[in-house]
Amino acid sequence: MFAPVYFDHNATTPIDPAVVDAMLPYLSAHFGNASSRHEYGRAARRAIDEARGRVAAALGAHASEVVFTSGGSEANNLLLKGAAARSRPGLLAVSAIEHPCVLKPAEQLAGTGWTLRTLPVDADGRVDVARFEAVLAQRPKIVSVMWANNETGVQQDIEALAAMAARAGACFHTDAVQAVGKLPVDFRRLNTAGVQAMTVSAHKIGGPKGAGALLLDKRLDVAPLIAGGGHERGLRSGTENVAAIVGFGVACELAAARREEHARTTLALRRRLEDGLRGLGATLFGQRAERLPNTAFFAFPGIDGETLVGQLDRAGYAVASGAACSSSNPEPSHVLRAMGVAPDLARGALRVSLGGGNTAADVDGFLDSLRVTLARLHGLTAMAR
Amino acid sequence: MFAPVYFDHNATTPIDPAVVDAMLPYLSAHFGNASSRHEYGRAARRAIDEARGRVAAALGAHASEVVFTSGGSEANNLLLKGAAARSRPGLLAVSAIEHPCVLKPAEQLAGTGWTLRTLPVDADGRVDVARFEAVLAQRPKIVSVMWANNETGVQQDIEALAAMAARAGACFHTDAVQAVGKLPVDFRRLNTAGVQAMTVSAHKIGGPKGAGALLLDKRLDVAPLIAGGGHERGLRSGTENVAAIVGFGVACELAAARREEHARTTLALRRRLEDGLRGLGATLFGQRAERLPNTAFFAFPGIDGETLVGQLDRAGYAVASGAACSSSNPEPSHVLRAMGVAPDLARGALRVSLGGGNTAADVDGFLDSLRVTLARLHGLTAMAR
Repeated sequence: MFAPVYFDHNATTPIDPAVVDAMLPYLSAHFGNASSRHEYGRAARRAIDEARGRVAAALGAHASEVVFTSGGSEANNLLLKGAAARSRPGLLAVSAIEHPCVLKPAEQLAGTGWTLRTLPVDADGRVDVARFEAVLAQRPKIVSVMWANNETGVQQDIEALAAMAARAGACFHTDAVQAVGKLPVDFRRLNTAGVQAMTVSAHKIGGPKGAGALLLDKRLDVAPLIAGGGHERGLRSGTENVAAIVGFGVACELAAARREEHARTTLALRRRLEDGLRGLGATLFGQRAERLPNTAFFAFPGIDGETLVGQLDRAGYAVASGAACSSSNPEPSHVLRAMGVAPDLARGALRVSLGGGNTAADVDGFLDSLRVTLARLHGLTAMAR
Repeated sequence: MFAPVYFDHNATTPIDPAVVDAMLPYLSAHFGNASSRHEYGRAARRAIDEARGRVAAALGAHASEVVFTSGGSEANNLLLKGAAARSRPGLLAVSAIEHPCVLKPAEQLAGTGWTLRTLPVDADGRVDVARFEAVLAQRPKIVSVMWANNETGVQQDIEALAAMAARAGACFHTDAVQAVGKLPVDFRRLNTAGVQAMTVSAHKIGGPKGAGALLLDKRLDVAPLIAGGGHERGLRSGTENVAAIVGFGVACELAAARREEHARTTLALRRRLEDGLRGLGATLFGQRAERLPNTAFFAFPGIDGETLVGQLDRAGYAVASGAACSSSNPEPSHVLRAMGVAPDLARGALRVSLGGGNTAADVDGFLDSLRVTLARLHGLTAMAR
């Protein structure tokens, strides 16, 4: 089978074989509903309890702070809508570069009496602290700022922002989906700084699709998004996806154990990649900010990103253009727009997000293919003139 | 390994090996995010499209009417909250015997300006048609009545109720989670009768946990519960659980193909079981109503259901007491209360829900164990007097 080089780990990751092995019994003999009071049910319940412990240990949380969801999008919706439902409408503040699964529920809340403030970022994608303080002075009830951006990889100083929000009396949430496995994550420490809720996802860290969690300070009152049988301490009803939760637990443990090595190897590869990209005339985004070690986001002036993704796909390299998680969005990236990047350049954006399985030979081969592709596209552009 | 006889198919079902086989490639080589525009992404998208076609074909729907969710609870919450969000608050009517994942979101809506009417049922668990008409005369905007009850197996005449609701101008939804695989299901026909939305779930029909769907008349305006990247025509965002969706598709196809045979064999086993239960002095619930072929719900006066479930579990039989899908609910079944069953008898309720893998020997062995257990419990009760 033809297997293209996978350079799109921020969109999703290959599932670790150890994760699948751990899941398989729960797709066969141990098929029980964890709410059932017989041996099939108890086996499922034990597996969920164990997975909850693994997730908590890997993220520096207590097991009772882990609310399993179907993924990151659900966890973000749960926090925003669930916290809003327990409060009178007021001010809600989210950064301009949030994932759509924060931006869209925030917009939905804006249609139900809440006032939405969008926090601007600087040219490198960092939240503008002066503007953040100005918004905090208006006493927002809920503030959500992502830890690391999925497109640029740019990190926020999440402890500092959370501390400022806490001093202003706001509930502070962070979408940490891209941080886990790439940065040290310690929910206890974050919670002490002022983070009351944090979103994580399994399929971004070698786990299966269909599992994620909201880590939640238990003093925070949140209404369930999916109400029903009272699962997950009443915060998320629905028969637990046992196999996916088990896989999530193993993936969290592996991601924590491998994080330093993963960061070292992907950062070395990214440096090799970005040196080559500069040589090819690329504009690199977010360069002056602290970034995730695995993420390079760049554009070539005059070249369309979608076209380039298609050409590179045919050449055997799987990369992303603009916002990769969105269903079908031909608009230039809202993240780059918020950073003040000109629309024409933003439309050329390409993302390489590296993973543990990538090699220097992959990077070198990619740069060769890119060189050839760019030459062809520049030739076509010149002919069209 | 010790494998107890599984008699709890309304809680969840063993996953069909053919379903797991179909899922496995999407837990390994085909791990892509279906939104990605490279070969890994396209392979995932093709798999989802194919699964959507299978689900639609098995349920008599068009592929564009299938909105994949993480399961039945999410689909019920999506319909109720999503339809309510697109309307001014008004009257909402649900039957008294709905699953908690309909009752609880209905209660949440009652806290946001909606008026909740609970539709009573008769002593056999059928919606009281005269009372239903009286509620319809008050012009409810949304009506939700489950097709077949998870505890009693009692069916509603869903086409007749939907037609009445449609004449009254209401949006009519049915939770069909227990009907699929046990009754003929044709969404086109139901939709013509007046059903605008229908909830289904994978793990009740030999599929995996983590997948379900809302079948939705496209003229019905529904706000997303999980908003974000715009997946599922904007109605359900979040990276698709490709493997679970693929498994759901295969499970739907198998369930439809095997339905008649499944109904015939489980009904024969249930008759054998219920004859034995009557001999042991059981009270059978919902007997005069049309019931799912696989479900027997009964009690022995003076015997606690939870205790009996525990004893039978030790004897090697996995059965349910009261409401099985709920997390931890020691209250007597709300379904039996709605049917007017005395709380003392309701606390004794036991459910046997049969599946394709069960045999006459399983039923006979169960009846033997039950006889012994009852004698012991009656002895203890007599000694305690």
